[in-house]
Amino acid sequence: MTGRLLVAESDLVAVAARRVMARCDELARVSATTGAIERVYLSAEHARVNRLVAEWMRELGMTSRQDAAGNLVGRLEAGSPSGAVRDDAPALVLGSHLDTVPDAGRYDGILGVLVALEVVRLLRVPGPDGVGFRSPLPFAVEVLAFWDEEGTRFGKALLGSSAVAGSWDPAWWDLADADGVTLAEAFREFGLDPGRVGEAARRPEELVGYLEAHIEQGPRLDETGESLAVVSSIASARRFQIVVAGEARHAGGTPYERRRDALLGASEAALAVERLCRAEHHVIGTVGQLEAYPGAVNVVPGEAHLSLDLRGELDGERDRVWRSIEAELDEITGRRHLSWQAREVHSAPAVFCAPLLQDVVREGIVSTLRPGAEEPATLFSPAGHDGMALASLTGVGMLFLRNPDGISHHPAESVSTGDVAHGVRALAESVLQLAADRP
Amino acid sequence: MTGRLLVAESDLVAVAARRVMARCDELARVSATTGAIERVYLSAEHARVNRLVAEWMRELGMTSRQDAAGNLVGRLEAGSPSGAVRDDAPALVLGSHLDTVPDAGRYDGILGVLVALEVVRLLRVPGPDGVGFRSPLPFAVEVLAFWDEEGTRFGKALLGSSAVAGSWDPAWWDLADADGVTLAEAFREFGLDPGRVGEAARRPEELVGYLEAHIEQGPRLDETGESLAVVSSIASARRFQIVVAGEARHAGGTPYERRRDALLGASEAALAVERLCRAEHHVIGTVGQLEAYPGAVNVVPGEAHLSLDLRGELDGERDRVWRSIEAELDEITGRRHLSWQAREVHSAPAVFCAPLLQDVVREGIVSTLRPGAEEPATLFSPAGHDGMALASLTGVGMLFLRNPDGISHHPAESVSTGDVAHGVRALAESVLQLAADRP
Repeated sequence: MTGRLLVAESDLVAVAARRVMARCDELARVSATTGAIERVYLSAEHARVNRLVAEWMRELGMTSRQDAAGNLVGRLEAGSPSGAVRDDAPALVLGSHLDTVPDAGRYDGILGVLVALEVVRLLRVPGPDGVGFRSPLPFAVEVLAFWDEEGTRFGKALLGSSAVAGSWDPAWWDLADADGVTLAEAFREFGLDPGRVGEAARRPEELVGYLEAHIEQGPRLDETGESLAVVSSIASARRFQIVVAGEARHAGGTPYERRRDALLGASEAALAVERLCRAEHHVIGTVGQLEAYPGAVNVVPGEAHLSLDLRGELDGERDRVWRSIEAELDEITGRRHLSWQAREVHSAPAVFCAPLLQDVVREGIVSTLRPGAEEPATLFSPAGHDGMALASLTGVGMLFLRNPDGISHHPAESVSTGDVAHGVRALAESVLQLAADRP
Repeated sequence: MTGRLLVAESDLVAVAARRVMARCDELARVSATTGAIERVYLSAEHARVNRLVAEWMRELGMTSRQDAAGNLVGRLEAGSPSGAVRDDAPALVLGSHLDTVPDAGRYDGILGVLVALEVVRLLRVPGPDGVGFRSPLPFAVEVLAFWDEEGTRFGKALLGSSAVAGSWDPAWWDLADADGVTLAEAFREFGLDPGRVGEAARRPEELVGYLEAHIEQGPRLDETGESLAVVSSIASARRFQIVVAGEARHAGGTPYERRRDALLGASEAALAVERLCRAEHHVIGTVGQLEAYPGAVNVVPGEAHLSLDLRGELDGERDRVWRSIEAELDEITGRRHLSWQAREVHSAPAVFCAPLLQDVVREGIVSTLRPGAEEPATLFSPAGHDGMALASLTGVGMLFLRNPDGISHHPAESVSTGDVAHGVRALAESVLQLAADRP
C-alpha cells in the first residue's frame, strides 16, 4: 500500500508544505509579546488561535469544538460500507500543541497541528452525494490541538493532554501563575467551567491511536542528513529543586578556611551533573536555574538554589545517575561543610511508542525515501510530548522532522519546507498503512 | 604618658563598656524591619537614630549638628592655654557609621561611634568656671557618625564619608533605590538640599586626623586570643559584573556536545576565583551573585551573570589575581565555546593607615596589656571603612576589636563587654598619646 496515495499527488504535498509554513508564520503573529512569540494557556492568544484554527478545520469539512479544558478538536467522520457518513466510529487522533514557551520558535507543537490538517486535506473524500467530506478509512480522523504542553503559565506541563487522558489532578486547581491567578480562576476567566473538566476525557474505545509529527528539538537528524525519524520512546524525566546551605558571611573579613560558601558547592554540583550524565549513555541533565542568597556583592552566599532536569531513555539509567549525583552532593557538601536537600517536583516514567504505530510511521517515512535507501533512523525523544499523557489512554506513535542545528525553544528554531513536505507525505502514508495493518 | 589616664579609672572604663553594649541594644531596636536590623541612608530610622545620638552627644557637653549629607557631628572644643574654650582649634575626629546592611548585626559601625562617645566622656574636663566641658588637649575632639558606609540603599558605599572628604560625585544624584527613588529625591524627602552637599566637606587644616574603632569582621583575633589589633591598611578592592554568554537551548533535545551552557562556564569561573585567590596570600575573592538566564528548568542557560568582589592588601597582588582570573575566563569560555565580558563597577586602591596614627593606636593597645605581653597584632582590613574616603583629607588610624567567630553582616555578630572595655581604654590612650607625640 505504501506510496499508493502520494505518488500521484506530490504537487499537492508541496502545496501543503508551503501552506504549513505560511500558517506557522501567521500563528507566530498571535503573541502576548511584541517582537517575540508567547502564547500561554487560557490567554487571549489561546482564544484567538483556537478561533483561527477552528476555521481552518471547518474549511476542510471537519466539525470543530473546544473541549472542556480548552483544547481544540476537529473531526472528520468515517464512512460506512454503504458510503454514508457514520459518527460512531472510533477515531485516529493526529495532533500536537498550540501553546509556546516564552520567546519561542514558531514550529514546536504548532507544526504538528498544521501537518495533521494537511494530512486530512490529502486523505478526505467527498461525502455522500458530494456534500461535505468524510474519512475514506474505517475510522474517523481527529485533529487534536492541545493547550499547555509546555507548562509555561502554571509550571505544570501537559495540562490539556492530561484532561483528555482523564488524569486531571484536582490539586492543580490551586496552581497559580506569576500574577497569582489560580488555574481555577483562569478557567473561569476563559469561559470554562472547572467543574466540567472531566468532560474533556476520552474513553479508550473511542480511539484508534495517537500520531504526532514534531520537530526533533535536537540535532541528530541534522547531523545524519535525514529528513525524518521514527520515535521509539519519550524520555523518562525527573526534576528536582536542590538547596545547598552554608553560612552567609562578610566577603571581606572571612578567610577561605572559615567560609561555608553555598554557591561554590552549588557550582561544583552543576559541574558534577554534567560529568556524571556524560559518563552514562542516553541520560542528560540540565541545571537551568541557579541563584545565590542573600545575593549581595559583598556577602559570601549562605544558600544556593538550583534546579535539575534529568532525562533518560530508560528509567533505570536515569535513576542510576541521580543516585550518583546524590553521592556527589554528599561528598561536595561534606568537604565544604555545607548541607543539601532536594525536593522532587516532577517524575515521569519513559513512555514507549506502540510497536504497531512505530511500524506504520516507519512505513510512512520509507514512502518518502528513494528506493534502496537505508532504513529510517529511530530516535528516542529526550523532550516531553503530549503523548506522555495520552499513553495511558491509547497507543502513541511519533514522527520527528529534522530541526536544523537542533535549535528549539528559541526564535531561531527552524524546519525546511522540503522536510515538511516529507513529513506531510509520511504521516499521510502512516495513516493509510494503519488502516491496512490494523487488526 | 601611656596608662596615665586610665590606671586610675578602670571602674569608669568598665561602666563605659556596659553603656556601649546597652546602647548597641537600644539602637538595634531602631529598624525598618521587625525582628531584624536594617537602617538605611535617608530613612525614618536614619532621622530617629541621629536624634537619639545627638542627645547623647549633648549630654556629654558636645555641640551637635547634622551636616549637609545627613552625617551627625558632635564636637568638644579645645581649651586655650589660658583655660578658656576656643572654637577655632583643629579637631581630631573619632567615628564610624550608623547605617547597616539588611539583616545586620548590632555592632558593625555603631560600636565605633559609641566607643568614641565614651572616650569623650573619659577625656573631657570641666569648662571655664565649671560650665560645660572642653577637651583637655591642644585640639578639639569630634565624634563623626557617618551614614551610608554600607551602600545598602543606593548600591554605592561611603556616601557620607565621601561628602565629608569633598569627593561627592554629582553623577550619584541619579542613583536609585529599589523603589526607583533617586538619591537627589531621597535627599529632599529627608529635608536636605542636594545643592548644598558641598557644605559637608571639611578642609585638611581643620583636622588633626581620624581614628576609628571597629569590630574586625573576621576571625583572626578570635584565633590568636587577642582583644585588639592595630590596622595597617584598608584593602584594595575591585568589583566586577561578569557576563558569560552561550546559547539557550532546549534541555531535552540538545546533546552535550552541542551545548554552549553559560551556567557551567560561570560555575567553573566561580571555582577558579576561589582557587586562584587561595594561591595568593592576602587576596580574597567572592562571587556573591550568580544567576542563569533565561532561568527555566528545561532550558540550557544561554547567559549567566556573576559578581566578583576582589580584595587585597596591596593593589599589585589584587591586580595580579584579576589578570589570572581573566586568563582563566579565556580558557574556560574558549573550551566551552562561550564568550565573556566584565564591567568594573568599583575600584579603590589600598589605603594605608598613617604611620603616626598606627603608632599611637599601638601604644593605646599596649596600655591595655599586662606588662611584658607580646606586641599587639597588626592586621590589614579586607573590609572597607569610612577611612577609605577620609584618607584623601587627613591621616587615618584604626583599631580592631575581636569579633567572636568572625561573624559580621549577620544577626549573630558579637563582641564581648570585656573587649569593648579594652577598646575604650585603648582609644582614649591613643588620643592622649597623639596629643603627646604630635609635632
